[in-house]
Amino acid sequence: MDQQPLFVKMAVDGWNQQIKATNNMLGKITDEQLRNEISPGKNRGIYLLGHLVAIHDLMLPLLRFEPALYPELVPIFIEAPDKTIADLPSVGQLREQWTTVNDKLSAHINSLTPADWFTRHASVSEEDFAKEPHRNRLNVLMGRTSHLANHRGQLVLLVPKS
Amino acid sequence: MDQQPLFVKMAVDGWNQQIKATNNMLGKITDEQLRNEISPGKNRGIYLLGHLVAIHDLMLPLLRFEPALYPELVPIFIEAPDKTIADLPSVGQLREQWTTVNDKLSAHINSLTPADWFTRHASVSEEDFAKEPHRNRLNVLMGRTSHLANHRGQLVLLVPKS
Repeated sequence: MDQQPLFVKMAVDGWNQQIKATNNMLGKITDEQLRNEISPGKNRGIYLLGHLVAIHDLMLPLLRFEPALYPELVPIFIEAPDKTIADLPSVGQLREQWTTVNDKLSAHINSLTPADWFTRHASVSEEDFAKEPHRNRLNVLMGRTSHLANHRGQLVLLVPKS
Repeated sequence: MDQQPLFVKMAVDGWNQQIKATNNMLGKITDEQLRNEISPGKNRGIYLLGHLVAIHDLMLPLLRFEPALYPELVPIFIEAPDKTIADLPSVGQLREQWTTVNDKLSAHINSLTPADWFTRHASVSEEDFAKEPHRNRLNVLMGRTSHLANHRGQLVLLVPKS
């Protein structure tokens, strides 16, 4: 039995579950609540949302799909810590970008063949990849699934008690 | 090329990275700090640590390795929400159990053959597994990797600023 498609399904299912749970959660947090800190002195929800948009956007070139859509978010939400930059994009804009970038990713993810997933990601050279074949595109997806789970566990603290 | 060992390496590496990051983080939080809430009104660190021990302990039977070591933790840290049970195990005991259960898991994980990872986990019947082969032991490990990442993102809020 060819287990390559099976393994791709497992990894893609894991990704889709995290995206779905995150979207469900974001639907329960108002824009106003997203401007709050997740805990006193810690990151604000808006920063974490922007961070996730920026990281997912960079998956487009990292997975060799297409250029990033929003490279202007990198200095704000990846390179700078929260509360060091006064002018942030609005929560509404970040929500739209979050949906757009994940839809783009999803279209590429669904069109990639199982064999394509086991080719190199953009940050590893052909030479290094020959020696370290685990540094493939599917491994990026798995790593970003954990990254999303990590920050989802933080954003959920902003969901109001029902 | 047989990619089965490669998938297993990718998934096991992801698990090991989360365990390592969590242990590193727990080393920076005192027992006293673990008794604090991660955010006002939210779960305490001790509850999240106990929850992780209990869930990892249940992986022992779920992965068909061996019986759970600490089934007494289930009603306290899985079935009951935080702050509903007055008498909890000590933080010191939970830290020891955390190390013990992960060491046990690690020994089993390292001895399982790649083919064994793609056999069913304990909560799916032979009949259902024949139709849904993604419900295998490796998928459990991948799901628990995201589960750990999720709660690690919460526990990290207790790490004091250096």
